[in-house]
Amino acid sequence: MSSQAGSERLTVMVLGADGYIGWPMAMHLSQLGHRVIAVDNLSRRRWDREGGTYSLVPLHTMGQRVRRWGLISGRQIEWRRADLRDFAAVDRLFAEFEPHAVIHFAEQRSAPFSMVDRAHAELTQVNNVVGTLNILFAIRDRVPDCHLIKLGTMGEYGTPNIDIEEGYLDIEHNGRRDRLPFPKVPGSFYHLSKVHDSNNIYFATRAWGVRATDLNQGVVYGVETPETSLHPDLNTRFDFDSLWGTALNRFCVQAAVGQPLTVYGKGGQTRGFLDLRDTMACITLALENPAARGECRVFNQFTEQFSVLELAELVARLRREQGLETTVAHVPNPRVEAEGHYYNAKHQLLLDLGLQPHYLSDTLLNSMIRTVEGLADRVDPVLLEQPSVSWKTGGNEVWDRYSNRERATSAS
Amino acid sequence: MSSQAGSERLTVMVLGADGYIGWPMAMHLSQLGHRVIAVDNLSRRRWDREGGTYSLVPLHTMGQRVRRWGLISGRQIEWRRADLRDFAAVDRLFAEFEPHAVIHFAEQRSAPFSMVDRAHAELTQVNNVVGTLNILFAIRDRVPDCHLIKLGTMGEYGTPNIDIEEGYLDIEHNGRRDRLPFPKVPGSFYHLSKVHDSNNIYFATRAWGVRATDLNQGVVYGVETPETSLHPDLNTRFDFDSLWGTALNRFCVQAAVGQPLTVYGKGGQTRGFLDLRDTMACITLALENPAARGECRVFNQFTEQFSVLELAELVARLRREQGLETTVAHVPNPRVEAEGHYYNAKHQLLLDLGLQPHYLSDTLLNSMIRTVEGLADRVDPVLLEQPSVSWKTGGNEVWDRYSNRERATSAS
Repeated sequence: MSSQAGSERLTVMVLGADGYIGWPMAMHLSQLGHRVIAVDNLSRRRWDREGGTYSLVPLHTMGQRVRRWGLISGRQIEWRRADLRDFAAVDRLFAEFEPHAVIHFAEQRSAPFSMVDRAHAELTQVNNVVGTLNILFAIRDRVPDCHLIKLGTMGEYGTPNIDIEEGYLDIEHNGRRDRLPFPKVPGSFYHLSKVHDSNNIYFATRAWGVRATDLNQGVVYGVETPETSLHPDLNTRFDFDSLWGTALNRFCVQAAVGQPLTVYGKGGQTRGFLDLRDTMACITLALENPAARGECRVFNQFTEQFSVLELAELVARLRREQGLETTVAHVPNPRVEAEGHYYNAKHQLLLDLGLQPHYLSDTLLNSMIRTVEGLADRVDPVLLEQPSVSWKTGGNEVWDRYSNRERATSAS
Repeated sequence: MSSQAGSERLTVMVLGADGYIGWPMAMHLSQLGHRVIAVDNLSRRRWDREGGTYSLVPLHTMGQRVRRWGLISGRQIEWRRADLRDFAAVDRLFAEFEPHAVIHFAEQRSAPFSMVDRAHAELTQVNNVVGTLNILFAIRDRVPDCHLIKLGTMGEYGTPNIDIEEGYLDIEHNGRRDRLPFPKVPGSFYHLSKVHDSNNIYFATRAWGVRATDLNQGVVYGVETPETSLHPDLNTRFDFDSLWGTALNRFCVQAAVGQPLTVYGKGGQTRGFLDLRDTMACITLALENPAARGECRVFNQFTEQFSVLELAELVARLRREQGLETTVAHVPNPRVEAEGHYYNAKHQLLLDLGLQPHYLSDTLLNSMIRTVEGLADRVDPVLLEQPSVSWKTGGNEVWDRYSNRERATSAS
């Protein structure tokens, strides 16, 4: 597959192309000259309607986005609505396009959503596991040489008291040695679903010789890439509610509307982070340097570590520098997680492939906050009431309030 | 929960009570004086009808079994037909019986069945994962003190080049230490489903304080317990086909009908084994010495290790001692697995609780072969054609032949 490296035009299927990363990824690869098939079942928009959540940045439909992209770039993204749980649909896509690679974002990706109740746990695990199984079988039977690039999460590892390696660990035990999958202790039914996927994918590489790159991605921030900036129709999502948003997004919105920045518990929860533009670069590097047949390559995809409290203090400092007093408030932690722990996760393999990181800068953070300030009148204060889902008991009255409100709206 | 130890009468729900181990387990616990609720959806009997397979030992219906058990023992087993994927049904069972413990056998448990095709892989993983999720939520919301005893498999570990510990491994890495889940490399979609379950259960113990014992069981042999021997209506299953049977059962049947004993590949595949009566004892020990709240206790449940070739040679030697020439034939291995490997799995924790093993003896093997000889006219030779499912390509012409035959029969 060395022929895939460099400037060859590849046929790439982007699954979950309506999502926060999927849409900019589709444009980025199209811009690089690859043939891009964008696939989504639009479930994320449906979950927004059902739960009363929404992207702060206004979104256009996939049809509008693809049309606008064609007009501006002169390049075509082929858009197909399909549900990965429907194997017949998956099989048709692989038979029709015979992709060189498939980039798989198409999963339910919210930890709190997976913890709302039993039905949300089941939905998350069945959706994610069955979708990925269907892709693996379609690759085996239709395009065995296809490279699966699968989005996982750094959250699969949890917070062990040892250094986190990239996917595998060399273990010496009772005088013998082996290289085995890094032991994972995921912290929600969502994170568990990603571990289930990783185990299924690793098996498919061993049993069938599938090529796979499993990306354990950190928390992604930023809303702009060179392509999204070309036209408002090409925007991607910005989630800030407690179900879909990240802590950093929440802090930006709270800062913009003058509320305290709410940190869950002590705030010592440390995670890996990366810029949306670096996500584009990492996945492009994986695509253009594919895994070998039968290889299950694991990259930890992030560039820096921060604790939640560090991020809150970073935002507060920036605001103070602009003369805007901003406080940090500690609220009870709805999650079951360590609030202070050792964390040292390796992330060398993508650097070795040539990644040039954009580190989190005051400039970028200020730009994010300015974007949010321009949209402050779209912030529904109910969505800043924290938190709506408890790890121990599931969705609470805030969850009920906004999801019921939406149901009331739908019924009217 | 020390009050549960010893002779207290417990309310125990046996899920999968129509199965090979589930049915003798239900009787064993009833005989010990516990209140037993036997639950099954009878899917195993349906899969037999669909696939043209059957138990060599004739089986009676659950209704007949429970009636006979009541007449003979004077004890009542409460029998309920229910599907664990139906949460409303699970919730009703937990609300009605408020069990002290639930013993969960109710999963699709055949590796080859899970490898037949995509649909069988999905069925296996969704059935097993969703059933277990439903139990975990019912425990959380209905009976938080209930002890979940879950049947897993030694096959979750695969065949690492280091000693296999019981569930967890103390790891030293770069000068730091942690105790983490033992890394697992399962070898089929079925084995993967058990790993998914184990990960979900471990999470529920951490997040919700569920009590759990996860039993990584070896290959079980034998068809008799003190209770099954009381009356033919109380028999349990004996599977010998390549989908549901074990290698040892296949060897016994091949010996009884005078065919060569077929070993997959070199036969160096080494596994843990135990007597059906020891399974009864292990699970009773786990039941009467429950896990603490929030504890996810893992036991490796087997008593001896054998390679497949050792077992074939054992059966062949016994036959030769009776003047019956028996040969061992190596056939192409349908599975993707190591055929010669290091294997040293620990199994101390159940011994520490008091397990007194029955090791595999010539007497027991001869008794199994005699049982099979008495039923030799029930052996369908198609079911001895090996193997019907390939790990690389799924069900083959043998699978098609006998499953189609059944479909033809059903249609007539």
